Amino acid sequence: MFEEYMENVRTGIPLIHCMTNYVTVNDVANALIACGGAPLMSDDIDDAVDITGICGGLDINIGTLNARTITAMFATGRRANELGHPVVLDPVGAGASKMRTETAYGLMDQIDFSVIRGNISEIRTLATGEGSTRGVDAAIGDAVTDQNLASSVGFARAFAERTGSIIAISGAIDIVADADKAYVIRNGHPLMARITGSGCMLTAILAAYQVANREDPLKAAAAAVCMYGVAGQMAAERMQARQGNATYRTLLIDAVDCMEADDLEDNADYELVI
Amino acid sequence: MFEEYMENVRTGIPLIHCMTNYVTVNDVANALIACGGAPLMSDDIDDAVDITGICGGLDINIGTLNARTITAMFATGRRANELGHPVVLDPVGAGASKMRTETAYGLMDQIDFSVIRGNISEIRTLATGEGSTRGVDAAIGDAVTDQNLASSVGFARAFAERTGSIIAISGAIDIVADADKAYVIRNGHPLMARITGSGCMLTAILAAYQVANREDPLKAAAAAVCMYGVAGQMAAERMQARQGNATYRTLLIDAVDCMEADDLEDNADYELVI
Amino acid sequence: MFEEYMENVRTGIPLIHCMTNYVTVNDVANALIACGGAPLMSDDIDDAVDITGICGGLDINIGTLNARTITAMFATGRRANELGHPVVLDPVGAGASKMRTETAYGLMDQIDFSVIRGNISEIRTLATGEGSTRGVDAAIGDAVTDQNLASSVGFARAFAERTGSIIAISGAIDIVADADKAYVIRNGHPLMARITGSGCMLTAILAAYQVANREDPLKAAAAAVCMYGVAGQMAAERMQARQGNATYRTLLIDAVDCMEADDLEDNADYELVI
Repeated sequence: MFEEYMENVRTGIPLIHCMTNYVTVNDVANALIACGGAPLMSDDIDDAVDITGICGGLDINIGTLNARTITAMFATGRRANELGHPVVLDPVGAGASKMRTETAYGLMDQIDFSVIRGNISEIRTLATGEGSTRGVDAAIGDAVTDQNLASSVGFARAFAERTGSIIAISGAIDIVADADKAYVIRNGHPLMARITGSGCMLTAILAAYQVANREDPLKAAAAAVCMYGVAGQMAAERMQARQGNATYRTLLIDAVDCMEADDLEDNADYELVI
Repeated sequence: MFEEYMENVRTGIPLIHCMTNYVTVNDVANALIACGGAPLMSDDIDDAVDITGICGGLDINIGTLNARTITAMFATGRRANELGHPVVLDPVGAGASKMRTETAYGLMDQIDFSVIRGNISEIRTLATGEGSTRGVDAAIGDAVTDQNLASSVGFARAFAERTGSIIAISGAIDIVADADKAYVIRNGHPLMARITGSGCMLTAILAAYQVANREDPLKAAAAAVCMYGVAGQMAAERMQARQGNATYRTLLIDAVDCMEADDLEDNADYELVI
Repeated sequence: MFEEYMENVRTGIPLIHCMTNYVTVNDVANALIACGGAPLMSDDIDDAVDITGICGGLDINIGTLNARTITAMFATGRRANELGHPVVLDPVGAGASKMRTETAYGLMDQIDFSVIRGNISEIRTLATGEGSTRGVDAAIGDAVTDQNLASSVGFARAFAERTGSIIAISGAIDIVADADKAYVIRNGHPLMARITGSGCMLTAILAAYQVANREDPLKAAAAAVCMYGVAGQMAAERMQARQGNATYRTLLIDAVDCMEADDLEDNADYELVI
């Protein structure tokens, strides 16, 4: 079902403006190329507002924010909204510092996001002010499980309704929700948490899927999350003895690059909850 | 013919000061080491002017420019000129924003570049103001082809004459020209366009080749482009099923590191046009 | 003997705040995860002082310092000291520019460092003002050898006494010293000097080992250096024909990730000098 969405990215080659952190930016760029999009990084306010005009979508990631780039994110986000471009938010570390939390709130207040993607602790912080983020990783006590799935889905849908954004929560079980319905996705692999940038790459890929699939943003977001989770599984299957997280990083991006329609169709594991 | 130029880099280990973007900077550093040089990154004006003094050459890449680093690029470029160091320019995204285009013009105006390297759209923007850059990739309509080769070479030579710089245009067919003559190089591989940083790495390598081969700057530039293109081919040959762009990045840098004189001699595909 | 120290990192998962350079930051993050820790990068003064409060230790690396991040390093370092967190310093390029040297001096003056790690030229610069740093690499004439080992150990111990920090000098022979005793470590591999970031990764790993092994900081530092050197050897053993420095980078981080207690016990090569 999601194969068509993947194909649309590959034929459309959406150009994504990334205002993202310097830790994982190289992987974000290569992951965008791997999924079929094209990256363009720019974070100076005078450059970024221009650059976003030639792109199709915008990825805002606050992983290494500073006063200069925050100002540029607000101006560029508003410009992308004026242009009708999909804009995605990755609130890296929201809840871990006042600056990160307040920047995320401010961005949500002034910019319309197509998708907000984070781990459950980051999303809880944005929704309720009470996530227990441990740095940039989710706290174990916050995790989405089979036991709390119904309430977690309800939480995501309510937050989606309030924000007007698709909410994508990453974890062992992923939730991708709008106000009306939610996809529960059980792809992915624990090794994805053993590299830096797993989430950052997905957020950029989500932007590419939003741009290339405007007719159904929720399904496009679910397709991106599902495809990326399948890539995570396929990469894990290729791991050999004595290979560690650095090799896994390479295999993960490779798997996004090499994924065929059959791979996605055969391995996608999701349900639609209405 | 170019083997001697490659060897000179490896024996000289030229230290290259890189003022480059944060997207591909790690690959640039490892590619410089791979080719036989050594990298040193510094972009604060108070640090960079000092640092350039202990280096042999300077690489200016505007891929993620900002007001602070632009000022440092001008001051450091002038200092490198005073010291007689080769300085190379990578005008990433010239034509994609006013800030990038004007910064590139300003740098060309105030600094003497040994080599200016970009894709055809970036170079056309610098030469005529009319490139149709699509972000950081060249527009298809601009491409150098067998059909327009003579005029493309003429264009490169004229621009080299006007600027006093060697002009290196990267694409399926590469052109490396000064005012008097041009190398047309048919090495390289389409996979090089499937990773971020292909161009950035080459520009830094060009700087290392300029520093280690002062007696013939044009031939040194052609040697760098040819060597790097051969590395791109050798890396492509080593790709296996289910390997994607992340593996290709690793193989490309490996190929630069492992290249032997015979590899370069056997695979170099160029002609000198006078 | 060092296996327990490695295990303590893996069970404790210390969260390390890294204020580090943008060249090698991604490798630093993945190396921290590989060794058993967790990374969090933040360099804006308003964010970093907060962030350090939720972390267990702080890594300050001046590889791409600028006026903004220097100010943040001082404020955050002082805050980490107040909190009693281990703080490590990597004085990248001290001696290569006035700004780097003076920043390193200033940091040493105002912040208590658990460990200061650098190559011999950087450490000589900090101790005597007379290192002959060649960019970010040590000068050959400064190298620690069997011939000058006794005086080098004496130098390290004297500098440790003066600063109150453990001094870790990286090279073909590593020295890890406090005022009273020193470990001389002969692990590692020359390929570690063929990639960017070898030193940066080790410094971050040192921070993780300090946080997870508070009872014996010197032995913890020696364990980190020894473990990392063994990883360098194991990575080198896995290199195949036509593989170069980019593959070595991946294998090095993999080796840290996959190291078992027996690997460390069987390969550790050190002596304790009192």
